Amino acid sequence: MEIAVSRKAHFNAAHRLHVPLWTDEENFAFFGNCNNKNYHGHNYDLIVTVIGEVDPISGYLIDMKQLSTWIKQEVEDAFDHKNLNLDCDEFKNLNPTAENIAVVIWNKLRSKIPTHLKLKVILYETERNFVEYNGN
Amino acid sequence: MEIAVSRKAHFNAAHRLHVPLWTDEENFAFFGNCNNKNYHGHNYDLIVTVIGEVDPISGYLIDMKQLSTWIKQEVEDAFDHKNLNLDCDEFKNLNPTAENIAVVIWNKLRSKIPTHLKLKVILYETERNFVEYNGN
Amino acid sequence: MEIAVSRKAHFNAAHRLHVPLWTDEENFAFFGNCNNKNYHGHNYDLIVTVIGEVDPISGYLIDMKQLSTWIKQEVEDAFDHKNLNLDCDEFKNLNPTAENIAVVIWNKLRSKIPTHLKLKVILYETERNFVEYNGN
Amino acid sequence: MEIAVSRKAHFNAAHRLHVPLWTDEENFAFFGNCNNKNYHGHNYDLIVTVIGEVDPISGYLIDMKQLSTWIKQEVEDAFDHKNLNLDCDEFKNLNPTAENIAVVIWNKLRSKIPTHLKLKVILYETERNFVEYNGN
Amino acid sequence: MEIAVSRKAHFNAAHRLHVPLWTDEENFAFFGNCNNKNYHGHNYDLIVTVIGEVDPISGYLIDMKQLSTWIKQEVEDAFDHKNLNLDCDEFKNLNPTAENIAVVIWNKLRSKIPTHLKLKVILYETERNFVEYNGN
Amino acid sequence: MEIAVSRKAHFNAAHRLHVPLWTDEENFAFFGNCNNKNYHGHNYDLIVTVIGEVDPISGYLIDMKQLSTWIKQEVEDAFDHKNLNLDCDEFKNLNPTAENIAVVIWNKLRSKIPTHLKLKVILYETERNFVEYNGN
Repeated sequence: MEIAVSRKAHFNAAHRLHVPLWTDEENFAFFGNCNNKNYHGHNYDLIVTVIGEVDPISGYLIDMKQLSTWIKQEVEDAFDHKNLNLDCDEFKNLNPTAENIAVVIWNKLRSKIPTHLKLKVILYETERNFVEYNGN
Repeated sequence: MEIAVSRKAHFNAAHRLHVPLWTDEENFAFFGNCNNKNYHGHNYDLIVTVIGEVDPISGYLIDMKQLSTWIKQEVEDAFDHKNLNLDCDEFKNLNPTAENIAVVIWNKLRSKIPTHLKLKVILYETERNFVEYNGN
Repeated sequence: MEIAVSRKAHFNAAHRLHVPLWTDEENFAFFGNCNNKNYHGHNYDLIVTVIGEVDPISGYLIDMKQLSTWIKQEVEDAFDHKNLNLDCDEFKNLNPTAENIAVVIWNKLRSKIPTHLKLKVILYETERNFVEYNGN
Repeated sequence: MEIAVSRKAHFNAAHRLHVPLWTDEENFAFFGNCNNKNYHGHNYDLIVTVIGEVDPISGYLIDMKQLSTWIKQEVEDAFDHKNLNLDCDEFKNLNPTAENIAVVIWNKLRSKIPTHLKLKVILYETERNFVEYNGN
Repeated sequence: MEIAVSRKAHFNAAHRLHVPLWTDEENFAFFGNCNNKNYHGHNYDLIVTVIGEVDPISGYLIDMKQLSTWIKQEVEDAFDHKNLNLDCDEFKNLNPTAENIAVVIWNKLRSKIPTHLKLKVILYETERNFVEYNGN
Repeated sequence: MEIAVSRKAHFNAAHRLHVPLWTDEENFAFFGNCNNKNYHGHNYDLIVTVIGEVDPISGYLIDMKQLSTWIKQEVEDAFDHKNLNLDCDEFKNLNPTAENIAVVIWNKLRSKIPTHLKLKVILYETERNFVEYNGN
């Protein structure tokens, strides 16, 4: 009997989309104003979902306070009020697209969340653009 | 050709998380202020999803009015403006965590919805905490 | 490594639910006031999801601007500020239920989106009623 | 000691913006595709606010169930699943712009709500366009 | 040059509407199922607005962290995960209607916020019912 | 007979809160991580409200397409996907707090909107923090 439990979090960050292998013209042609050399930013909304069996005694799948603590440590403390390109080692050599940010967050949380639980993340870059990754 | 049709509903209820097998100290350590002996409460939002084939004549998967009636009878009339622990037989011996409430709702609706349709429920305890259950 | 990228769009349209094979009484009994002969209308919200592999160079699954252009051409230009029954060939012989509109949109977008990417659409007729279709 | 109490409602309707005094060309130039002769539609969200003194015994400004009943009678029964231009006498000679619909709703509710209470309405035509009217 | 700065907060609480002067029948007739003797509950959303002049050096009207701290101390610590009727002295002799809760919150915050700033609170009992109070 | 018409828009930008007159320590003590020297960012939501008389012929207070064009020219083209501190002359000598951004936007729009109409702006820096300015 599998259930999914989700927790919403958020962080505000600056970023710039840029591929060092490409010329400035190629970058602008591909990324448009997301390539602005002085950065722009977003309020990122994050939904973290863990999937598994409910404990029959407590009625909990996972302690939500523990999950919140992991999200705070791995995501909010790492990315909130940061410049993803300049301040975060995770994106030193990785373009901070929504896709890549979601994969990075998934990997960081995966290392914390017990292995018998499945993990999925949804990252909203804006209300109208979002990505989902579950490690498969 | 499978399609999913969803209907949103809500109910407002009081509850308390508590495991009778545990001491008061153990309950508070585990559930924190969700264990408050005088209860607290939530506006629960519910999304009920039924999945199956669309009828080629009507273009409906299911009559939404019928689905709404079932949700009203099984969920809203049972839980809205109630104390889940004290007023609802379903939680006399079951801790009313979001996980358990979702499973209870799924079972109640499953008995009504035609068996050729799959069923999934998502229950929001708050805007930031929610659970999903599909019977598997 | 599969990721899902979603884009939200919307359109405002009038429609009427009606099955020509049925009598007026049968139509009203089945569809209620959605059968109003003078039409009613909705703000439709659409979420288009494409699923596939992220390009390791750009960090993009798909160029969101390209996806937006396809949504504009195939959905918004076709349905926004239209009467689905009268103005849109797609519904000349198809009842414009949310289910059928979702399938039509999926088919229209499927013809544009590269075949190595999976496609899913979610169509909100109202905030409380929505359907999902992924072509299976 | 003045307090404001608000209640949200909604209705789904078709409409067309058109001024009979103007030529078809003038109407299209002014109203664009809102002038579509076959109508389009919206999910209208309505917020009704009444303002006055709280009753010191009950702690209520107004009985919300009574307010809901008035909104149902005057607004939802009148406009929901209707074509505002064709089905509603209020707009036989009045262009159903959001501005005019808000004024019509205010006038209809004003006749019901006790005169010692002030009244304000906010009407959302879409999530991004809305109007507010308070009778002054 | 006056500006308004708003901060959103929330708390989850149980309550019961009841006037001790009235009989049980009168209470039920007036408050309906909000009178349930075992309580029900809500996710309350609160918007606190302070109004005044922006400081020309910092560009701040008020330090939002300070405002958040006051909201936490006066509202969240006092009411979150509480039974308003049983756990909160403020409602020992005051019916916890949305109107009265808003006035209580306003008074509690008014004692903290500098007197040269105006104060307004909006309290959502549900997404569809909310009240506003500004002390006048 | 005065009515208010509102239009929602948005832009995504990077910014940093910093007062050049203050030391680095003073800036960090006052602005916290909003002072990050490498910037962070937000999805800003903007509500522009114009207030005046409805034209009795058209039923419009203002042509919403014209209003949208002004918002695009004055706000979105100026600030979207920009670094407010580095890319925007308006903030070369003005700290880009939400308060100051709202006043700048109001002044820019005021120069476009006909003088017989009143103007108000609400700027959401996040879903939980927002400011309102009406020029008084």
